[in-house]
Amino acid sequence: MPELRRDPIIGRWVIIATERAKRPADVPHGVARAPAGLCPFCPGHEDKTPHEVYVAGRPPSAPPNGPGWRVRVVPNRYPALMIEGDHAREANGIYDRMNGIGAHEVIIETPDHEKDLGALTDAEVTEVLFAFKARVMDLRNDLRFRYILLFKNHGSPAGATLEHAHSQLIALPVTPRQVQEEIDGARRHYDHRERCIFCDIVMQERKERARLVYENEEFVVFAPWAPRSPFETWIVPKRHESNFEAEPKERLGYCAQALRSTLRRLGAALGAPPYNFIVHSNPLRDAASPSYHWHIEVMPALTHVAGFEWGSGFHINPVPPEEAAEFLRLVAT
Amino acid sequence: MPELRRDPIIGRWVIIATERAKRPADVPHGVARAPAGLCPFCPGHEDKTPHEVYVAGRPPSAPPNGPGWRVRVVPNRYPALMIEGDHAREANGIYDRMNGIGAHEVIIETPDHEKDLGALTDAEVTEVLFAFKARVMDLRNDLRFRYILLFKNHGSPAGATLEHAHSQLIALPVTPRQVQEEIDGARRHYDHRERCIFCDIVMQERKERARLVYENEEFVVFAPWAPRSPFETWIVPKRHESNFEAEPKERLGYCAQALRSTLRRLGAALGAPPYNFIVHSNPLRDAASPSYHWHIEVMPALTHVAGFEWGSGFHINPVPPEEAAEFLRLVAT
Repeated sequence: MPELRRDPIIGRWVIIATERAKRPADVPHGVARAPAGLCPFCPGHEDKTPHEVYVAGRPPSAPPNGPGWRVRVVPNRYPALMIEGDHAREANGIYDRMNGIGAHEVIIETPDHEKDLGALTDAEVTEVLFAFKARVMDLRNDLRFRYILLFKNHGSPAGATLEHAHSQLIALPVTPRQVQEEIDGARRHYDHRERCIFCDIVMQERKERARLVYENEEFVVFAPWAPRSPFETWIVPKRHESNFEAEPKERLGYCAQALRSTLRRLGAALGAPPYNFIVHSNPLRDAASPSYHWHIEVMPALTHVAGFEWGSGFHINPVPPEEAAEFLRLVAT
Repeated sequence: MPELRRDPIIGRWVIIATERAKRPADVPHGVARAPAGLCPFCPGHEDKTPHEVYVAGRPPSAPPNGPGWRVRVVPNRYPALMIEGDHAREANGIYDRMNGIGAHEVIIETPDHEKDLGALTDAEVTEVLFAFKARVMDLRNDLRFRYILLFKNHGSPAGATLEHAHSQLIALPVTPRQVQEEIDGARRHYDHRERCIFCDIVMQERKERARLVYENEEFVVFAPWAPRSPFETWIVPKRHESNFEAEPKERLGYCAQALRSTLRRLGAALGAPPYNFIVHSNPLRDAASPSYHWHIEVMPALTHVAGFEWGSGFHINPVPPEEAAEFLRLVAT
């Protein structure tokens, strides 16, 4: 059983996922690539994954776990957390631990082995985002979970272990530290000014335009004021909404346009870079919030995180966001 | 002039260091290796670095910036921050910025191009730590600085750009977020219990022994309870002390033993891995603290930080610290 352990000084939880490595020195170094024709995410190989928990595109009359789908969600075969069990929170002297319960799922974004998310159509990306929403709506019924992380690792330097386009979902019994810090920071701003800080940011970015990359009716894409690394890009809904899963399908369509445009621009500007994105949303058990505002953070994996950054939380970024944004605005996609 | 910018939501400062890249897409990918015989850190090449600010081993009568030294400290030729200027803090709408003032120095740990820090003698490592201390004592007189980061990147995956053994120092006009979080967390523990959390940890680790790697009269080395990644290892003084630079040379000798033993064990266990270490110490302008406790965090750079970790602050570690510690205790060095 994996374990969740809490750092006693700053309160950060980590997953000790022993099922993923067999010996202490057996640390993953590279990327396990499926031999050609044996990709477990390709149509016809549905029996190579655990049973699907969500599917789009296959008629309801067709049998499950067969081809004919456009988006397919399955449990991760090597989960970081286990779905069965209770928290069993306990102390070990001054330390805290609990069982590593949670869900870990894979969203297979397309049946096409050759296409990444940015190469799909707006309608196809919308279906992927709708699959995100459908899984959150289902998993939030499990009261053991407090937060659901939706994220994508694309390319080996960004942590992907299979090349077929996919994103991931991890349902957690705790709220991740960085999201909690955002929530706390946004609440301080709200307490002081009675405005959402993200709404303020959207307003300033749309007015100033220097860091603006793209906008449509409902979403704005920009390089944040203080990016941790080159070409960090945020996708933020213009209208205030704390919870990703509260968005209706129509607005997810606008989000898909913005996400697809962002990925295409990054791909054209940087030559198909490895990248990560993550959805930041309000925790499952919190009421809809006037101070927090869901969004997507996209980060090309261009630079190693060095000791300085890792050990201090202090980042050095050689590319000003104004230059990155201009580059992304003007690039031909 | 580089710029410090503050994230408006969580308050994290980043350095926008434009001097380090010339064009937006000109992001460093690899490691610039000096051709053999042209290493700027080797004796005889002292004119290839900026003028030294500290030296150990060369007689005071000998001219500066020549050979004969055992440890040499020079300004970084490509500094992330600039030494001249004032803060010039100002607002840009809802955002905050200041001039990127600070010091960025390189500690050349040995004249021997072939040896890393762990291969030096205890006396030699003590001289390196004493150089750290001497530079902090000097730079803390500059009242613009609030914090001094001492760290080492060894090997290209850990962010090193030159292979000759060296560590770095960055003096900052702000306290890094992660250190501030530790200070705040330690203060909460102290307010509640009137004990230093680090002293509590040292006591529990020495009693429990499961995560203990090494100890001598003055320092203890262990795998922390909730490590972010495999083989993360901490070096902590047994006696309470908030400030690294307050340690007398004798205790730095014990610290050198502990650091050298740690690096040798990691090297033997993992096959000379790339690694980072960072010194966490009390900020320069704070009084000596009963609640904070300086220490060194060592992290082999074995795994990429994936999207999940980067965007959530939530880490998955496949190696339990008890297994890592047993491995490091028993390995032959």
